[in-house]
Amino acid sequence: MSAAKILVADIGGTNTRLGLAGPDGIETNTLRRFSNNDHVSFDRLTRTYLDQLNIVRCRSACLAVAAPVEADRVRLTNRDWLIDKAGVARAIGADDVHLLNDFEALGFSLDRLTTQQAPHIAGPTNAPVPEGVRMVLGAGTGFNAAALRRNALGQRSVHAAECGHMTLPIETSSELLLRDHLAHGRGRASVERALSGQGVLEIHAWVCAQTGSPPAQLSAAEIVEQGVSGSNDTCRRTTEILVRFLARVAGDLVLAYLPLGGLYLSGGVTRACGALIASPLFWNEFTAKGRQSELMRSIPVHLVQDDNAALEGCLSALTAKAA
Amino acid sequence: MSAAKILVADIGGTNTRLGLAGPDGIETNTLRRFSNNDHVSFDRLTRTYLDQLNIVRCRSACLAVAAPVEADRVRLTNRDWLIDKAGVARAIGADDVHLLNDFEALGFSLDRLTTQQAPHIAGPTNAPVPEGVRMVLGAGTGFNAAALRRNALGQRSVHAAECGHMTLPIETSSELLLRDHLAHGRGRASVERALSGQGVLEIHAWVCAQTGSPPAQLSAAEIVEQGVSGSNDTCRRTTEILVRFLARVAGDLVLAYLPLGGLYLSGGVTRACGALIASPLFWNEFTAKGRQSELMRSIPVHLVQDDNAALEGCLSALTAKAA
Repeated sequence: MSAAKILVADIGGTNTRLGLAGPDGIETNTLRRFSNNDHVSFDRLTRTYLDQLNIVRCRSACLAVAAPVEADRVRLTNRDWLIDKAGVARAIGADDVHLLNDFEALGFSLDRLTTQQAPHIAGPTNAPVPEGVRMVLGAGTGFNAAALRRNALGQRSVHAAECGHMTLPIETSSELLLRDHLAHGRGRASVERALSGQGVLEIHAWVCAQTGSPPAQLSAAEIVEQGVSGSNDTCRRTTEILVRFLARVAGDLVLAYLPLGGLYLSGGVTRACGALIASPLFWNEFTAKGRQSELMRSIPVHLVQDDNAALEGCLSALTAKAA
Repeated sequence: MSAAKILVADIGGTNTRLGLAGPDGIETNTLRRFSNNDHVSFDRLTRTYLDQLNIVRCRSACLAVAAPVEADRVRLTNRDWLIDKAGVARAIGADDVHLLNDFEALGFSLDRLTTQQAPHIAGPTNAPVPEGVRMVLGAGTGFNAAALRRNALGQRSVHAAECGHMTLPIETSSELLLRDHLAHGRGRASVERALSGQGVLEIHAWVCAQTGSPPAQLSAAEIVEQGVSGSNDTCRRTTEILVRFLARVAGDLVLAYLPLGGLYLSGGVTRACGALIASPLFWNEFTAKGRQSELMRSIPVHLVQDDNAALEGCLSALTAKAA
């Protein structure tokens, strides 16, 4: 039984990624992605995964969930799945099961990622304090951020946040019009009202209305792709607005968390904007913090390219929690 | 020599507060406040203080400074004072001298303050997680925030931030006009452009211009006093704008730091607004965070009334750093 493996999972709104870890870390040949729609529950999905690999039981599990984790069970925000520690433990025969927020998991991955997994994309290549705080933030289904801190003894900690619900920071009359569009029917516009897949669609609808263009039936991914390539003018404008907000919010959160060990950008929407994040559009807005511009210009920015970063973080979190 | 005391100091832009701590904590009869204008340097000011108390030397010192602390010396932002660990150690005969940011010090005070020092002012009286993260934020000469965290072993940590330089969060066309006034000549408006003593003067000048009122020659303290009492209409409008921004920024920072152990408001400008912070004006704006409103309504808010809180924090930080 001592050879039993550790299950790690990243449970998103649409897909779930799974992997098994042994003494040498996550075993690449065990990595799988499942569509949540094909399974009635997380327990069943996991059982299917383990059966494929001929695994009867796991020693322990660490599960990252795209939802606030406050107790021994979590309900997914946009799917009727209850993920319950005791239920998972029974389903996979594990002694202990840990739940954490997906950004907590990403936070714990930050000092484990290689330059292939998270290449440098903007700013200086070296961090002012290499062993200092590292921060991850990003836009996907929603938006959030997390910081990895180490104390003098090298003990690592990550704290969950709800940064996607902070006020969307606007600065111009045009942005105020967009903010009013995003706030329509809700009374306010949060950061993730713009910085998310749904935000891309809403910003694009607003750009089309503003420019008198017919509203094209494009997915968020198509809008960002055509925006980054510049092949479509309303998509280009949409993506520029998106990246400007991303840069401003990222800059504000740098001032709140002071990640002198470096900033990491993650999430599907963020990643799709990579070419613009590497351009002056991002950097000029990111560093436009008045007397703190020098601090901002000292922060290296990386783009997390590896979809399995949260799984690395799950394994790393187990180690940190056991320490 | 073993009876030698610990010097604690809170060095602001205008005044410096000092105290001596023995085995039972800070000795109340040693607390003094000095005007920085009366002294050529911090070392001389401290020497004057110790001479008044007939103290030859101190065992150690912990100094809170209203400036970013990144090395063994700090230059005050608005005064030509260099505070240098080695220089202070020589001046007071101390073996070791610690420097920290004033909000770091306030952070370390948060689990040491009595209900007299930091009475409850808004929200529920009990924190959802009494041993959870506590956050302090406030407006005085500038604006900043800090969070006190404890790990599973009870070890305490506080991390410095530069929250005053985050983007001022505006939401309406009227606030956009004010933002443009505050940003004039600087290109942007940060949080502390509004939430500070200077911010009070600038908001009031803008309110006077908007309402066609003659610009009154009032100090920031007079504006807030007349605004809270309602005796002057432009002052009342100024103070309402100020408290609305304070509530919105405080709410945003709660989402970034999740202080389930409670929120503490500090600083001279904040304290002067106490009556409005206790009113629905603050609470309605503070809790207006969409799907996170329930979280917001669970956070108790305290107002730090004790001017010596940062000194308590200095002493407490020494203990935490020694642990």
